[in-house]
Amino acid sequence: MRAVDVIRRKRDGEELTAPEIEFFVDGARRSALAEEGDSTSRTWSEYQLSAFLMAVYLRGMSTAETAVLTRAMTDSGERLDLSDIPGPKVDKHSTGGVGDKTSLILGPLAVACGAIVPMMSGRGLGHTGGTLDKLESIANFRVHLTEAEFRRALREVGLGMIGQTRAVAPADKKLYSLRDVTATVESIPLITGSILSKKIAEGIRGLVLDVKCGHGAFMKSRSEAKALATSLVNVAKSNGLDAIALLTPMDVPLGRTIGNSLEVIESIETLKGQGPKDLTDLSVLLAARMVKLAGLATDNADAQKQVRAALASGAGLEVFRKCVAQQGGDPRVIDDYSRLPVAGKTMTLRAKRSGILAEMYAGAVGIAAMVLGAGREKAEDAVDHSVGVVCAAKPGEKVAEGEAVYEVYYRDDWKLKAALPLLESSFTIADTAPAEVPLVYEEIG
Amino acid sequence: MRAVDVIRRKRDGEELTAPEIEFFVDGARRSALAEEGDSTSRTWSEYQLSAFLMAVYLRGMSTAETAVLTRAMTDSGERLDLSDIPGPKVDKHSTGGVGDKTSLILGPLAVACGAIVPMMSGRGLGHTGGTLDKLESIANFRVHLTEAEFRRALREVGLGMIGQTRAVAPADKKLYSLRDVTATVESIPLITGSILSKKIAEGIRGLVLDVKCGHGAFMKSRSEAKALATSLVNVAKSNGLDAIALLTPMDVPLGRTIGNSLEVIESIETLKGQGPKDLTDLSVLLAARMVKLAGLATDNADAQKQVRAALASGAGLEVFRKCVAQQGGDPRVIDDYSRLPVAGKTMTLRAKRSGILAEMYAGAVGIAAMVLGAGREKAEDAVDHSVGVVCAAKPGEKVAEGEAVYEVYYRDDWKLKAALPLLESSFTIADTAPAEVPLVYEEIG
Repeated sequence: MRAVDVIRRKRDGEELTAPEIEFFVDGARRSALAEEGDSTSRTWSEYQLSAFLMAVYLRGMSTAETAVLTRAMTDSGERLDLSDIPGPKVDKHSTGGVGDKTSLILGPLAVACGAIVPMMSGRGLGHTGGTLDKLESIANFRVHLTEAEFRRALREVGLGMIGQTRAVAPADKKLYSLRDVTATVESIPLITGSILSKKIAEGIRGLVLDVKCGHGAFMKSRSEAKALATSLVNVAKSNGLDAIALLTPMDVPLGRTIGNSLEVIESIETLKGQGPKDLTDLSVLLAARMVKLAGLATDNADAQKQVRAALASGAGLEVFRKCVAQQGGDPRVIDDYSRLPVAGKTMTLRAKRSGILAEMYAGAVGIAAMVLGAGREKAEDAVDHSVGVVCAAKPGEKVAEGEAVYEVYYRDDWKLKAALPLLESSFTIADTAPAEVPLVYEEIG
Repeated sequence: MRAVDVIRRKRDGEELTAPEIEFFVDGARRSALAEEGDSTSRTWSEYQLSAFLMAVYLRGMSTAETAVLTRAMTDSGERLDLSDIPGPKVDKHSTGGVGDKTSLILGPLAVACGAIVPMMSGRGLGHTGGTLDKLESIANFRVHLTEAEFRRALREVGLGMIGQTRAVAPADKKLYSLRDVTATVESIPLITGSILSKKIAEGIRGLVLDVKCGHGAFMKSRSEAKALATSLVNVAKSNGLDAIALLTPMDVPLGRTIGNSLEVIESIETLKGQGPKDLTDLSVLLAARMVKLAGLATDNADAQKQVRAALASGAGLEVFRKCVAQQGGDPRVIDDYSRLPVAGKTMTLRAKRSGILAEMYAGAVGIAAMVLGAGREKAEDAVDHSVGVVCAAKPGEKVAEGEAVYEVYYRDDWKLKAALPLLESSFTIADTAPAEVPLVYEEIG
């Protein structure tokens, strides 16, 4: 088999065979290893991988092809075998949004209901944050555990929240780095393969997908988001992983905080039952779907009841406390937020007229937080855990002239200067209330 | 400007600006130079060049974009300035066929009519031969002249037949090598840029394009060939190069010989007025269009009359004789074919029934000649100038059972064995004559 022939067939819009797709993924795997100094010989050059990615971008892949792609990407690396750890393993993946800290809440809640959650997450990029960055706000919290440590965490706490190891899906690492610089990121089969190959490697039985759409999300339109959600669910099921996807709106930040330590505080508040309604409700819903996929509930209503109970009893909070301690972090942060790094300088951005807060563009707020230092423009940038934005008001709420809309936590004056115009233009105040946005648009799977 | 943004715009089917296309071509140029050890820094990686090529393959380019691409590719290297050499400079390019040796005939004929022909050609690849390989059948013929030698040849003979120098269109060299291994060869804008960038660099005023179509040609269908011809003519004219294209059939070998020294002999025979009718007529027609573009004739009929006269008088043959001598070759080959290397072993392939030769698949004959050693499968393969195939009969001619269809000139028995099945299945004999094929389907420009 020759790379050029496989490229040609996809270029011509033909359905590839499993051996052809496996040959491509193996080529990506070899390229990744060769780059790391391994003596593995390349079978596909990087320019051939890229030409193929562009052909897939423009010609697409069927569900059957995407399923083979995903499995081959998983098999390019190691799969965790968690069969010796008792309990049903489930996880959640979100396509990313502004203020989206549900992982920190739903993981503990699902575990409190009896699930095992071996959560491997990524870091933030662009206007969206990442679970690892948030957790690292907690002093000494270790997101890189050895496999033995991760297994111990799952066995003793039921929850582990770590970064992807180099052993997981090396083909994805190679392909993702090429897609980033060849304008082939926004391809449903390639996104599906990238997300699911790593989740399948976790050795879980069920996966809840939070596919966000709106101007603060990766997928701007409902139709794009639905196509991605459908691909994710179908391909997961083809690979023996039970999955459901929720299409959720991402036009407005989720909850009231954006920025790493601010989001950790809000997550803890939520686990204490004092979180904002949108964040609480979505976290509970997603956790309930995890509990359902874990086989721990008779139906969705039962699952939701169990999760609400775990929230009300503080059982979820206790799981989070144990998780922090297990991964080397200081669990005292849960009762003493002053142990979290919050920037000392604050600035209040106030309403210039009275009315009802109408729009709040999640994308603009996310970029403002990134500019303040809370996020990364490039993967190699460092993150400042202490800075961010708190929404004093949210769409639908009344504000009087001179009242706070945002509290900005910042460290450097020049970064505040750069972020302010973004924040100032990120909201509108109207005389009438905006239309209600549902918690979930649609459920697939 | 970032490569990834230019790729994205082409991926989305947008019309690129001139600076964007120039940025891409400059990236290819830098990549070529960096590869040769030059200290030039890269601006596009090879994987970005390849992703862009695939996007162009699938999304296309407008004539305006292709014109900019072509000019930028020309300007990636040196242009010959022949303004100090008197006389109108013209050339011909053929998209390649089996037995296509018209360059060796029309060059001398056009020069005999007063044109200057600074012909830079390529080598053969796959089932089609190359002018340089044919010329190198002549002992000591030098296809690599210095620029000073090339200028002297044009000044003293009017004709120079050489290979492309490394200084000509280095961006094309890089892009061609990538296209070959990324399944992006068959793209009309990319083919147009590749062909014309090198011809424009010759410093000519007119170019005749022989765009072949049929199963022995690069373009199989009339519609594809016409699209390419139209692109070539429009883009040449946009770049100030007058051009016409002839769409000609390539289902059957041109003339009666396939193989380097055999084709040189046939070319000389044609210049002596004793060539086969199809080869003679096409060479005269193409030479006449060159004479017309050179401004040396009042109309096509006048041009054709002049070329026929140069053929009848032997003036064309004398130009070829001078050209051979000028480039270091032995001009005695013209009167003594035994000075050309012709394989000593021959084998006659005979008709198994009587009838009229109906079909003769040029592609199969071309591959058989390649298998015998006359051509290359890969660019780095060596060529055996002595081997090849002579068509004793051509479609439309009567053959009796046991009469010769092919004379095969070979060196190695095992290569003959490999070539024979191809030749045996390359023709059909019928009871009725096949439909007449025109010399030219259509003229464009």
